[in-house]
Amino acid sequence: MALTALGLNCSLKGGNAPSSTELLVRQVLTALADHDIEPAGIVRVVDARIAHGVSSDEGAGDGWPAVRRRIVDADVLVFGTPIWLGHPASPAQMVLERLDAFLGETDDEGRMPASGKVAVVAVVGNEDGAHHVGAELFQGLNDVGFTIPANGMTYWVGEAMQSTDYRDLPDTPEKTGITTRTAAANAAHLVRLLAGSGYPPAG
Amino acid sequence: MALTALGLNCSLKGGNAPSSTELLVRQVLTALADHDIEPAGIVRVVDARIAHGVSSDEGAGDGWPAVRRRIVDADVLVFGTPIWLGHPASPAQMVLERLDAFLGETDDEGRMPASGKVAVVAVVGNEDGAHHVGAELFQGLNDVGFTIPANGMTYWVGEAMQSTDYRDLPDTPEKTGITTRTAAANAAHLVRLLAGSGYPPAG
Amino acid sequence: MALTALGLNCSLKGGNAPSSTELLVRQVLTALADHDIEPAGIVRVVDARIAHGVSSDEGAGDGWPAVRRRIVDADVLVFGTPIWLGHPASPAQMVLERLDAFLGETDDEGRMPASGKVAVVAVVGNEDGAHHVGAELFQGLNDVGFTIPANGMTYWVGEAMQSTDYRDLPDTPEKTGITTRTAAANAAHLVRLLAGSGYPPAG
Amino acid sequence: MALTALGLNCSLKGGNAPSSTELLVRQVLTALADHDIEPAGIVRVVDARIAHGVSSDEGAGDGWPAVRRRIVDADVLVFGTPIWLGHPASPAQMVLERLDAFLGETDDEGRMPASGKVAVVAVVGNEDGAHHVGAELFQGLNDVGFTIPANGMTYWVGEAMQSTDYRDLPDTPEKTGITTRTAAANAAHLVRLLAGSGYPPAG
Repeated sequence: MALTALGLNCSLKGGNAPSSTELLVRQVLTALADHDIEPAGIVRVVDARIAHGVSSDEGAGDGWPAVRRRIVDADVLVFGTPIWLGHPASPAQMVLERLDAFLGETDDEGRMPASGKVAVVAVVGNEDGAHHVGAELFQGLNDVGFTIPANGMTYWVGEAMQSTDYRDLPDTPEKTGITTRTAAANAAHLVRLLAGSGYPPAG
Repeated sequence: MALTALGLNCSLKGGNAPSSTELLVRQVLTALADHDIEPAGIVRVVDARIAHGVSSDEGAGDGWPAVRRRIVDADVLVFGTPIWLGHPASPAQMVLERLDAFLGETDDEGRMPASGKVAVVAVVGNEDGAHHVGAELFQGLNDVGFTIPANGMTYWVGEAMQSTDYRDLPDTPEKTGITTRTAAANAAHLVRLLAGSGYPPAG
Repeated sequence: MALTALGLNCSLKGGNAPSSTELLVRQVLTALADHDIEPAGIVRVVDARIAHGVSSDEGAGDGWPAVRRRIVDADVLVFGTPIWLGHPASPAQMVLERLDAFLGETDDEGRMPASGKVAVVAVVGNEDGAHHVGAELFQGLNDVGFTIPANGMTYWVGEAMQSTDYRDLPDTPEKTGITTRTAAANAAHLVRLLAGSGYPPAG
Repeated sequence: MALTALGLNCSLKGGNAPSSTELLVRQVLTALADHDIEPAGIVRVVDARIAHGVSSDEGAGDGWPAVRRRIVDADVLVFGTPIWLGHPASPAQMVLERLDAFLGETDDEGRMPASGKVAVVAVVGNEDGAHHVGAELFQGLNDVGFTIPANGMTYWVGEAMQSTDYRDLPDTPEKTGITTRTAAANAAHLVRLLAGSGYPPAG
C-alpha cells in the first residue's frame, strides 16, 4: 500500500488567500511524490476550526478530530508555518497543543499514535526566524512521537527587516530548492524504513 | 560489525568532578547497550581543549579533531548537557559550532558526515529548561545531518528555583528512567535501519 | 492620575475554569497594587474571541480591538501564560501577532503605542519551560515597544514530568513569592519613571 | 559623573580579525555617545581568556574578573554576538554563565550587581536567527538583573542560506541604522532615569 504525506499550512490567513507557506508545503509534497510518497492534501489550519485545548476532542464544533484523523492516516507530516515575531504562527502552536494528547494515547506497547511517522518542517517569512521555528517544531513534534529525518527542514526568509514574500519571488531560490528536495528525499527514505520495521515497545 | 554510541558530557566542570550530566549520559549508554549498541566512551568536553571556531581543525592545540574523529566513528551520539540560564551549556554550543563544518564536508552525493547517524539528547538541571535545550540541540544536530529518533530526549529537572542535583537523588525518578529507556530503544532501532540502508543522494 | 496594570491570562481554558495562570497573574497585580499601581482587571484571552491576524482590527466579530484598547489604556502589562510543550500557549502567540501591528502605528516621533509601558511576564506549568517562555515573551513584547524591568519574570513549574498544578499547591512557594514581589516592585518603579519622562523620538 | 557603555563582542574570532559584530557594537556605542553615554571600550570575549564556570572568579588564569569589573563599572552593556546555527555564539553563553553569579551577589536590599544597568543586544549573521538570539540574551540578561529598554535590539542578517557579511555591505542598511539609533536613544534615556532613581529593595 502506498505511503502518504499530509501537509499542514499554519498561515494566519484562511480561505483562498495567497500563502507563501502553502507554496513551500506544496513544493515539499511534490518532492515527496518524486519518491513515491503520495500527497494526501494540505490542511489550511485556520479554516479547520480547531478548538483551543489539549485533548483529542474538545466537543461540539471542534474541527480537530477530522484533522487528527488525517494526520494519523498519513505517514509523513509536512508541517508548514510562517514566522511571526520570530516564532511559529499561533495555529502551529494550536496544533502542537492538540497533538499533546498523543502522550496519553499509547498502544499496548507504550507507543504514541505518531510512532513510525516522519515529520518535515517548512518555514517561510519575510525575514529572520526559520531556525528557531524549526527548533520549536522539531522538539514539539518529537515529544509527541514523530521522527525527524536528517536535514528535515526547508525554509526561506529575506534580508533583515525586509518585506518580500516567498510566493512573489521570480523563482524558487536555488538553495531553498535543494534543501526542499533533500528534506523530502530523506523523509521518504526514513518513513519507508520505519514502515517496514516499526519502533520496539517503549520504556 | 557492532554499532557504537559515543557520549558527550557538556558539563562546565572538568576532571573527575561529579557530574549529573555524566550520570544521565551513562544511563543512556547503558540502555543502548541493552539493545546491542556498544558504548564508545564519554567525552568530557571541557577537558578536550576544543578551540572556538567553525572549521574541523583550528590548528595547533585544538582538541576538536580528536573528538570529531570519535563522533564520526560512532553511529549514535548521546549529546548530554546541563542547563544554564535556561540554555544549553557553552561547551554544547562550542560542539555545535565545530559540527557546523559538516555542512561543507559532503560526500560525492551531497551527504554530510553525520548522514545515517542518530542523536539522542540528555539534559539535566536543578530546575527548568530541558525542553528548550532539547529544541536547540535537535535543530542544531539535525541541521548538520543527524537523524532524531521518536522521543529522542531524556531529561530531569527539579521544581522551580530549587537546587537539588540529579546525581544526588536517592533513585532515578521512574519517569526519567522510562524516558531514557525509550529514547535508547528508539535510537538503537533507527540507527540499525539506517546502517542497513543509508540516505539517498541529497538535493 | 493613577497608573494601572492590566493582566492577560493566556490559559487554554475559558469561562470560570480554575486557572493557575489566573492565580499567578492576580498575585502580580496584588503586588503591583502594593506599589500603588491600580489593577485594571484580567483578560481571559480565549474568551475574548480574538481573530487570527496581524492587524489592529480584523473586522466583524473580532474581539481584539476591545482588548487592544485595554492594553493601550494601561501602563503595565502582566502577561501570563501556561506552558504547553515547552512553549507559550497559543493564545499568547495570538496576542503577540496582534500586537505586531504596533510596529506600523508609530506616532509622529516614531514611537510605538507601547512606548513607556512596562511588561511583566508570569509563567506557570506542571513542569519545565518557564525560562524559554519568558525569553519568547520578552523578545516579542520588546519588539513591539514594551520595556522589561530588571527581573521582570515570575514563574512556577514542578519537577520533570510531574502533574501538580500551581493552584493546587498548599501555599505559594517562598521563592516564587519573592520573585513575584520583586518583579512587581521593579515594574512599578520603572513605569513611574517612564510616566514622568517618556522615551525620546525614534531613529 | 558621566554614564558609560561597555561593548562585548562575542565573535568566535580573536585578535584583529575583521568582525561584523565589532562593527555593529561600535555603531551602537557611537549612537549612545550621541546621547552623552561615554564609550568604555569593547571586550573581544574570546581574547579575554574567560574560564568555563558559574562563579565570579574561577581562579588562576581566569580572565573573567577583569571583564566582570568593566561590566560592573559601566552603566550600559552593549551585548554583541554573531549567530551560529541559529543560536548565540558560545562566548555569549560563557558570559551569561559567569553573570549567573550575580544571582547570589545581591546587596543588603536584595539587588543584583546589574541593578540599574541597561542592556542592548546587537546581533549579526549571514542569515537567520537574530530574533531568537535576542530572545535568549534578553531573558538571560534580565534574569541576572539588567533592564531592557523598549526596542532594545539591533541586528542584521542576509537572505536565507546566503553568505554575505555585514561588514562587507557597501553601506549600513537604512533599517538597521534606524534600529541601532532607536535602541541607543532608548537605552540612554532609560539608564539616565535609573541612575537618578534606582530600583527599590527586592522581594
